[in-house]
Amino acid sequence: MELINLKNVAQAVKSFVHRTPVLSSALLNETYGSKLLFKCENFQRGGSFKIRGAFYSALQKTRGGGEHTLAGHSSGNFGQALAMAAFRLGAKAVVAMPENAPAVKSEAVRRYGAQILWSGNDPADREELLDQYMKDHPEAIFLHPSDDLDMIRGNATCALEFITAHPSLEVLCVPVGGGGLLAGTALAAGVFPQDIQVYGAEPEGADDARRSFHFGKIVPSIRPDTIADGLRTQLGPSNFPIIRVGVTDILTVSDAEIIAAMKDIFRFLKIVAEPSSAVPLAVVKKYPEYFENKTTGIIISGGNIDFSTLCEILK
Amino acid sequence: MELINLKNVAQAVKSFVHRTPVLSSALLNETYGSKLLFKCENFQRGGSFKIRGAFYSALQKTRGGGEHTLAGHSSGNFGQALAMAAFRLGAKAVVAMPENAPAVKSEAVRRYGAQILWSGNDPADREELLDQYMKDHPEAIFLHPSDDLDMIRGNATCALEFITAHPSLEVLCVPVGGGGLLAGTALAAGVFPQDIQVYGAEPEGADDARRSFHFGKIVPSIRPDTIADGLRTQLGPSNFPIIRVGVTDILTVSDAEIIAAMKDIFRFLKIVAEPSSAVPLAVVKKYPEYFENKTTGIIISGGNIDFSTLCEILK
Repeated sequence: MELINLKNVAQAVKSFVHRTPVLSSALLNETYGSKLLFKCENFQRGGSFKIRGAFYSALQKTRGGGEHTLAGHSSGNFGQALAMAAFRLGAKAVVAMPENAPAVKSEAVRRYGAQILWSGNDPADREELLDQYMKDHPEAIFLHPSDDLDMIRGNATCALEFITAHPSLEVLCVPVGGGGLLAGTALAAGVFPQDIQVYGAEPEGADDARRSFHFGKIVPSIRPDTIADGLRTQLGPSNFPIIRVGVTDILTVSDAEIIAAMKDIFRFLKIVAEPSSAVPLAVVKKYPEYFENKTTGIIISGGNIDFSTLCEILK
Repeated sequence: MELINLKNVAQAVKSFVHRTPVLSSALLNETYGSKLLFKCENFQRGGSFKIRGAFYSALQKTRGGGEHTLAGHSSGNFGQALAMAAFRLGAKAVVAMPENAPAVKSEAVRRYGAQILWSGNDPADREELLDQYMKDHPEAIFLHPSDDLDMIRGNATCALEFITAHPSLEVLCVPVGGGGLLAGTALAAGVFPQDIQVYGAEPEGADDARRSFHFGKIVPSIRPDTIADGLRTQLGPSNFPIIRVGVTDILTVSDAEIIAAMKDIFRFLKIVAEPSSAVPLAVVKKYPEYFENKTTGIIISGGNIDFSTLCEILK
């Protein structure tokens, strides 16, 4: 995909998507030995980057007007983005969500008038539930939360903005769950003339992307166990080839390392980030050989966390 | 003070002071019935607006070169700003701080190499302690945390940036403790041709500014009792006249109302704000007659709060 095409995508979502700020902290840089820039998608509409892909994908798939129902499955952030995109486009929304999704996420989905189908907590449960819904409602339009080219293109607008505003970026480090943000980031990094390394950051307890990347084929995520609730999903056939080509490596960290990074984000950046968003900073700390003395861009993917949950985690 | 002069002040501090982002939330606007814009000084260098005034004041008072010692008293944020400004200008710093100052603030003061003089918790205690220090060290330069024209001019750069970037602002609502930020905001609002109302937001448990404003003379702050630790100080002869002329009114809220606003800031804005910074939002909620359907600017004055304290307050 060329830069001009990606700019068209950015143009298409511009009216609905915030241009989020980039933050930094001199004290944090000192502590980590890297020049760190944080693209704050926790301040994005809906509280995460997901609206970028969801809105672009919904826009592409509802062209031609008429009554539409947009349906998807989500552990939370995508559900909210889907509900918002549908609301904006005058479509109906149906979201299959796990019962253990954070209340702050399910409430937001409901607030935008979407119907929630409650499923079990395994990612497969909500996929099966939505499959059944799609069989019963063949007129509904299915939006995959991460494995869809329009979704990936929409997500790519985040790194596009980031690199355009900060052309000195040498490395990008972003969370990987379903792979939609990582693939979009690789896509965006690839359209710039300068050499920008892209790393995926993944929890050890849900390391299917790392294993898939090194094995060369998609390895399923089985009973993921991590506090990073947004990263319990697995790669798909649309984003995996982009990730294989455009990503340098996928690096993993433990939940304890994620929690330590969450504390640093809170203390030095003064922002509210969900556990998934702290995974890249934990990676930067654990693998200094890749990031030391480099201008490193981190995408804070979202900030949807209940206050009580945050206190429980960080106490 | 004319716009051109204030622009010179902004130019003088530009190399050391961040141009902080302005955030908003559609859901928060819906909840509050006002178009709210938040100038995020919690992302400022040192975690609060204080560096603006401290740096400008230190710059003005150390002109002429040579060895300098800058001395001040502070409940926390100003101490950190003073330490940073001194460090930057190659001067020594001495800060009198109360023993109950948040650890996150005293650690930062120490990190910049400043000497701390620990005092009792009443504002008068640290003032007396520093008075004694100044008597013993007549060569030291005293920087008042809020009641000093250079300090006020430096602080004015915050609202100057805010209004310049958002000329549609109709009302500004900012916290008032010592009065340095409120006076600076009034000064800045006054140099623009459009009519901008300025309100001070104060905790009921430390309402000396409201009483002084209505009585027409400075009323001392006696045993202030509020969770807004940055606002336990009182107005002074340099800022009071500016506040009397440029501020429309000073409005007060209870600690319970401040805590409710802190929760909304956390949830909707995804930022970490100290209790003092939540006072204006609590005011906007309590006095809708002044803010409803208006473009209202709030200055989030700082984000220096220990995580354990935040959990304790918001639980």
